[in-house]
Amino acid sequence: MTDKLEKIVSLCKRRGFIFPGSEIYGGFSGFYDFGPLGAELKFNIKQEWWKEVVQKRDDVVGINAAIIMNPKVWEASGHLGAGFSDMLIECPKCHKRFKGDDAENECPECGTNISGLKPRPFNIMFRTFVGPVEDTASVAYLRGETAAGIFVNFKNVVDTTRISVPFGIAQIGKAFRNEINPKDYIFRTREFEQMEMEYFVKPGDDDGAFKNWVAERVKWYERLGLSNIREKKQPKKELAHYSKATTDIEYEFPFGWQEIEGIANRTDFDLRVHSEHSGEDLSYTDKDTGEKYLPYVIEPSAGVDRIALAFLCDAYTEDGNRTILRLHPKLVPYKAAVFPLVANKPELVAKAREVYSNLKSQISNLGSIAWDDRGNIGKRYYSQDEIGTPYCITIDYQTLEDDTVTIRDRDTTKQERVKIEELSRTVCAKL
Amino acid sequence: MTDKLEKIVSLCKRRGFIFPGSEIYGGFSGFYDFGPLGAELKFNIKQEWWKEVVQKRDDVVGINAAIIMNPKVWEASGHLGAGFSDMLIECPKCHKRFKGDDAENECPECGTNISGLKPRPFNIMFRTFVGPVEDTASVAYLRGETAAGIFVNFKNVVDTTRISVPFGIAQIGKAFRNEINPKDYIFRTREFEQMEMEYFVKPGDDDGAFKNWVAERVKWYERLGLSNIREKKQPKKELAHYSKATTDIEYEFPFGWQEIEGIANRTDFDLRVHSEHSGEDLSYTDKDTGEKYLPYVIEPSAGVDRIALAFLCDAYTEDGNRTILRLHPKLVPYKAAVFPLVANKPELVAKAREVYSNLKSQISNLGSIAWDDRGNIGKRYYSQDEIGTPYCITIDYQTLEDDTVTIRDRDTTKQERVKIEELSRTVCAKL
Repeated sequence: MTDKLEKIVSLCKRRGFIFPGSEIYGGFSGFYDFGPLGAELKFNIKQEWWKEVVQKRDDVVGINAAIIMNPKVWEASGHLGAGFSDMLIECPKCHKRFKGDDAENECPECGTNISGLKPRPFNIMFRTFVGPVEDTASVAYLRGETAAGIFVNFKNVVDTTRISVPFGIAQIGKAFRNEINPKDYIFRTREFEQMEMEYFVKPGDDDGAFKNWVAERVKWYERLGLSNIREKKQPKKELAHYSKATTDIEYEFPFGWQEIEGIANRTDFDLRVHSEHSGEDLSYTDKDTGEKYLPYVIEPSAGVDRIALAFLCDAYTEDGNRTILRLHPKLVPYKAAVFPLVANKPELVAKAREVYSNLKSQISNLGSIAWDDRGNIGKRYYSQDEIGTPYCITIDYQTLEDDTVTIRDRDTTKQERVKIEELSRTVCAKL
Repeated sequence: MTDKLEKIVSLCKRRGFIFPGSEIYGGFSGFYDFGPLGAELKFNIKQEWWKEVVQKRDDVVGINAAIIMNPKVWEASGHLGAGFSDMLIECPKCHKRFKGDDAENECPECGTNISGLKPRPFNIMFRTFVGPVEDTASVAYLRGETAAGIFVNFKNVVDTTRISVPFGIAQIGKAFRNEINPKDYIFRTREFEQMEMEYFVKPGDDDGAFKNWVAERVKWYERLGLSNIREKKQPKKELAHYSKATTDIEYEFPFGWQEIEGIANRTDFDLRVHSEHSGEDLSYTDKDTGEKYLPYVIEPSAGVDRIALAFLCDAYTEDGNRTILRLHPKLVPYKAAVFPLVANKPELVAKAREVYSNLKSQISNLGSIAWDDRGNIGKRYYSQDEIGTPYCITIDYQTLEDDTVTIRDRDTTKQERVKIEELSRTVCAKL
């Protein structure tokens, strides 16, 4: 692991952003738990995406489909085939499996030499059994992506809403892949969260819509302050068989440039295979012209966990003794923190509690407020810098005289003094 | 199914609240997909819970743990034992399994008479396999409840936050149970969403905290307008072995009184078994007194899907030709709808679009706004009544003259006329 990534992992553990999954039981490879601050960060990322992709627009609706779907869905989509597999070498004696690249270095404990063997595809969908009997009739899968839940509900959404092409269906939710080699912290895990939207257009309008969505999505990252991103257009010969065009949005992680979101023109592939396999006609009839066609679909597909990691890496800054998470105010776990200068002066503490409570209720729509009354004030500032709190409000002796407080800025460390009655307005304006 | 429930199921399907899971593939028993309006309703329920149980308080933090945990967690918690099982009769010939009650009526297709056999416990945790080899070493489970993710992170939260006993850790997320007999629509499903909070207290303070939380939770339902609820204290002899007291909050569904939330005093059972099984000392040390103890825990545990169903059943009203969902304004998918009186007068439509856009941006913090310009105005009102929209705003000919619009109330059907410049203030005040 790189030095910078190690520091971020340590910060995330120490401050309650991210813990190894089931840590007291020794962890569980490829699974992570999000602590109080990490849960807030992820929540904020999801909320900003939902606002932008669903709520602001009139042409996108949301759904919330089940994680476990009828297994025929995955037969149709091709997820049970070689395309959704890791290439593994299986030891002919002990049946342990190894990633192609690792086979040279890693030998089965049974002692067999497997270095000459060819890797074969092993599917990475998690299997489970639904119903009382564990036989093949009841095999089901944890979804490998959220998009399938959108495609199988395409007709339901068209039939039950007043929306018409071009329109999108969005979904946020967990997905699962039995990665042979989970790595790079929360970048490649076995359980992860996706934000996916399928934007259905008339064939012929797909190139324009694709271009628009790439631009829209890049703008979203930029507005939230993410630097070190680039667009990477996949060359024609590397495209998946269903894709007419794919552009990845990549972020430069400490471990290199990696995809955080992919925007694909999936043509009519998904609606076509689900029409064929389900027997339901998923074509769309234009309400005005009566024209009937299978829409093309543009899919911006983003991973919440890897986006969270990108924002954390981008925000992580060291400045002398200070460690600062320069997260965008929309993403920070706490929008502000309120401190009494010292904890052993009851008048100061009472006044600070009053300021805290009022501010909390006044800006509750914007997010959470922290309270801290322990240790010296400098340490408290540093402690908030480290988790990204943009503004620290201190109630000091002068407050008791003139009802003013100081607001300290995370990035500049500068303090200004404002009247308590103007505090919430000032903080709102800054945020 | 009862007549009323049938009507609700039909409404939910027709208007995009709830669809059978993977419907185009014939569905999948025990799994449901939430359409655009159902996703909003569930989102609103979760948001109201989170606001109340986490955000408003200073003594509760949230987390977001993985669905797939280290299998040792479930060994410790007892979820792999008989206590988390369905009693089933297994046919000795074909190995199909049947619920005790159904064995008389339902005979295996193989023809064997199983009516004399005794039911045995079959565990209802969903199994899967993590890692490249499907052997017993890699068996894992989909969580049967979200609470376990809280208990295994208890120490992490204590160590990384400044919170002290009494305090709570909350989590919302999916849980899974391989129910042999999913039934009553979205009441008993195989995949469902839970809102759970574990409130840790000093032993001795548990009875008071238990009482408080029962009262708090009942108040929450009442504030959101749910009638037909009752508290049901479980008799001592029916309590689970770890519970000192349990009170269920029940709702009178069309299929009878059923639990929508349970509040339990789980004593120190969970922290104790996880301490024993993990080898980590999960006791808590009081920061002021130095006293060390295993906290007791009060658990309010609620099911999002069954709460959604309770609100739907409670709100469903027929009034002559009108079907109305009298949902609380905090829960409705759309806070308001905006209509031009007719769709073929460009000035009216343009004015209505302007009102719609402004209102949408002005009250975006409160929720979504619908737009409808199709069909006659009476039908559009009825259509919004059916999905619970509390206020319909119509732009008519008079609007073009004096910049006023009508606001029609879902429950009274009364209309009032207000100035456009006062519209958002009026709507906000009503909501």
